[in-house]
Amino acid sequence: MSKGLPPKDSDFSAWYNAIVSKADLAEHGPVKGTMVIKPYGFQLWDNIKEIFDKMIKATGHTNAYFPLFIPKSYLAQEAEHVDGFAKECAVVTHTRLKADPEKGIIVDPESKLEEEVIVRPTSETIIWAMYKKWIQSYRDLPILINQWANVVRWEMRTRLFLRTSEFLWQEGHTAHATAEEAQKETLDILELYRQLAEDYLAMPVLTGFKSEAEKFAGANKTYCIEAMMGDKKALQAGTSHNLGQNFAKAFDVRFQTKENTEAFVYATSWGVSTRLVGAVIMAHGDDKGLRLPPKIAPIQVVIIPIARDEAQAEMVKKYLQPVRDSFEEKGIRYHEDWTDRSPGFKFNEWEMKGVPLRLEVGPRDVENNKAVLARRDNGDKNIVSLEEAKESIPNLLEEIQEGLFSQALQFQKDNTHTVETYDEFKAQIKKGGFVRCGWDGSPETETAIKNDTKATIRCIPLDENPLELTCIYSGKPALHEVIYAKAY
Amino acid sequence: MSKGLPPKDSDFSAWYNAIVSKADLAEHGPVKGTMVIKPYGFQLWDNIKEIFDKMIKATGHTNAYFPLFIPKSYLAQEAEHVDGFAKECAVVTHTRLKADPEKGIIVDPESKLEEEVIVRPTSETIIWAMYKKWIQSYRDLPILINQWANVVRWEMRTRLFLRTSEFLWQEGHTAHATAEEAQKETLDILELYRQLAEDYLAMPVLTGFKSEAEKFAGANKTYCIEAMMGDKKALQAGTSHNLGQNFAKAFDVRFQTKENTEAFVYATSWGVSTRLVGAVIMAHGDDKGLRLPPKIAPIQVVIIPIARDEAQAEMVKKYLQPVRDSFEEKGIRYHEDWTDRSPGFKFNEWEMKGVPLRLEVGPRDVENNKAVLARRDNGDKNIVSLEEAKESIPNLLEEIQEGLFSQALQFQKDNTHTVETYDEFKAQIKKGGFVRCGWDGSPETETAIKNDTKATIRCIPLDENPLELTCIYSGKPALHEVIYAKAY
Repeated sequence: MSKGLPPKDSDFSAWYNAIVSKADLAEHGPVKGTMVIKPYGFQLWDNIKEIFDKMIKATGHTNAYFPLFIPKSYLAQEAEHVDGFAKECAVVTHTRLKADPEKGIIVDPESKLEEEVIVRPTSETIIWAMYKKWIQSYRDLPILINQWANVVRWEMRTRLFLRTSEFLWQEGHTAHATAEEAQKETLDILELYRQLAEDYLAMPVLTGFKSEAEKFAGANKTYCIEAMMGDKKALQAGTSHNLGQNFAKAFDVRFQTKENTEAFVYATSWGVSTRLVGAVIMAHGDDKGLRLPPKIAPIQVVIIPIARDEAQAEMVKKYLQPVRDSFEEKGIRYHEDWTDRSPGFKFNEWEMKGVPLRLEVGPRDVENNKAVLARRDNGDKNIVSLEEAKESIPNLLEEIQEGLFSQALQFQKDNTHTVETYDEFKAQIKKGGFVRCGWDGSPETETAIKNDTKATIRCIPLDENPLELTCIYSGKPALHEVIYAKAY
Repeated sequence: MSKGLPPKDSDFSAWYNAIVSKADLAEHGPVKGTMVIKPYGFQLWDNIKEIFDKMIKATGHTNAYFPLFIPKSYLAQEAEHVDGFAKECAVVTHTRLKADPEKGIIVDPESKLEEEVIVRPTSETIIWAMYKKWIQSYRDLPILINQWANVVRWEMRTRLFLRTSEFLWQEGHTAHATAEEAQKETLDILELYRQLAEDYLAMPVLTGFKSEAEKFAGANKTYCIEAMMGDKKALQAGTSHNLGQNFAKAFDVRFQTKENTEAFVYATSWGVSTRLVGAVIMAHGDDKGLRLPPKIAPIQVVIIPIARDEAQAEMVKKYLQPVRDSFEEKGIRYHEDWTDRSPGFKFNEWEMKGVPLRLEVGPRDVENNKAVLARRDNGDKNIVSLEEAKESIPNLLEEIQEGLFSQALQFQKDNTHTVETYDEFKAQIKKGGFVRCGWDGSPETETAIKNDTKATIRCIPLDENPLELTCIYSGKPALHEVIYAKAY
């Protein structure tokens, strides 16, 4: 914590990297693009995981685990799917090492596999190969399975949390008897993602669906939540795919319907990943570091005791006991920093780590039955009695949660613009933010705009209203109202 | 559930495989030796995971996540370690697929990696490469990190849960300033493993340490818990390694001591895996299927409503409400089976799945304010009032938990024998069970006995008393009292 952060406004990218490092969230692993998630960053992910795990269990889903390794031939089964993932697959070809007198430890050429094995980039293919065995009749449906797992996509340009070769995620894979049911599931999950983002990560999102060009390889339709980051760029924070019968056809998964006919099964898949940690950093962070929403913060209140000697320390420790008791009772996650660093150093460090509330207590506070309570979100600092502190902290945590959301929502609104001409569009994209406009629906227009401006269609919002609109690029009647932005 | 199980006594191995399949715990994945963990099996593992996660957090450990991929050169850094794992390493050599006009989808030869990457068989090497960056001074110590992860060991002879190419586990990796502290950590974790096995899995274990031949590749000393399975064979259920300074030396991890000198860091590592699920099956299962200890059972009470028509179903449903309320209030995990299969079918199925208690309620029970309460562990069946059921179930679950433990402990005692001659030894090993005897401590004796009988030293028990013993093989004075058995 020796130095501050690069200024957020002038160098967002350096600012982001510095927070990840200084808040002790993660660092690069030795193999290109891999990530070591450090304890503080992992606890943040684990809290998000726990919340979402409860949400999906409450809606009838169960967890299971499918293998990391997928036969190459499986991946090749669905044509669009393999096209989408072929260029970033880690391939296992051998199964032994051996000592070589000259080169040291080498891969044993005799251990070459007959069929190469892919490290899962996503699990549709292996799961649908298993579902083929599990599904015979409508009685076996629906299947509502999720897995928490690591996946690998060999990315060239990586960034901690946002895009790494290996990342942690949940992937839901459901099987249904009807198209309607699959569509309902796709949208129900989208709604859970919206709740997770807005109600827990305090991050407002747009809900919508992707253009053909941007959808998941193998999906009929990809729904998404899109969030605005602190530099006004967009981040895709979660996707829910209606896969139609594509994977059922690729893996020949048919079932006997209630009416005694045979039909292919309908599928969905959906995922959020450790990318959400990056989203939280970029949605809420400021020039002092992270600002964590209390509902997901590993530590909600940090207590900084101030004492010059053992006697003072004893006094402060004793004074704090009712606070501890109250936190334990109310289930508030707290930490006492008794390390021998200076109070100023500690303030900076815990601000960097985004802890929502700080409680400072020194010998004079003990004498006066006081404490200093400081908010991370807006910097407010108040001298309160210990009783007041105990009473007010649960409410303050709620206030901070709501405050972070409102602030981010205001920022998103302030930086979302409606444009009608292509010149306006280009000018606005240059300034940043979301641009809402008409699109004629043609891939040619989409590609031309992308090449021209680097902006992409983030989503076609669920509340679109294209009727009166014309396409900003072609001037033709709009097929969709879309949200354009530069994105991560 | 059409057929029963192969008899446990005459074909333990077929019995085991049949339970894994019929209780819907797991099945084989498409790549050799991989495993699909089905929802019921996964929930069992997840319960074990949650219990142990709390135990290690309560003792000051935190979770983190290290990459799946390890550079080949890292693995080669510690000589014994690479020897131990070289023959079962999945090696990633390429990072892209491409379409080939003749062969379909092939591995793109141009995507060959400069340095091959190993899929972690265990994470000591990558973690110690990171610890080198994190540790400078005694102030940085201890580091008490754990990770929940998948690991891969390309095994030839695999068995669901017991030995699979990929498995799930936790691996703790700690760093300490002194040898004493590392030794204390190693033993503290061994004690947590004992508690996990005995107090939660209801599985009595021996605690001890391994011979040089059986210890972990790279450890100074490997401690273990060893359990007896239903066929009297031993299963290593968890290991805790004192790694000394071996990995610190291999990765040059030195620190400044309090006394301002420089020293290598001391290390431990320890793990339990999805193998524990296999252990639970083999420790408690009977000819009707699984018998699950209530503390880890995904479902503690299954309710079987019996009704011939809608009206009866409504009546039973309403009658059960106070039971549901009571279960919710007390945190009892329950499931109501309203599927349209016959009661007999359901009884068999939930017995197969090892649910500790079954509550049957039919229309006549409603009239008489009664219910039938059946125990899975001993088959006891009682007619009770609904009030009695509600009252007694928490106690019954405790009784079953203790009963399973006592029964397994009795079995272990009945099948542990002390022998004094090699003839006795061989005869006893042939009959099965644990054999307690003297060993002269020489690797030659150990190898000779193994070749002769297939039995191995499972552990040198912590309470060994070798003073008066002679080696059963060589007749020399015993260096250790050991536990011999055939093992999984």
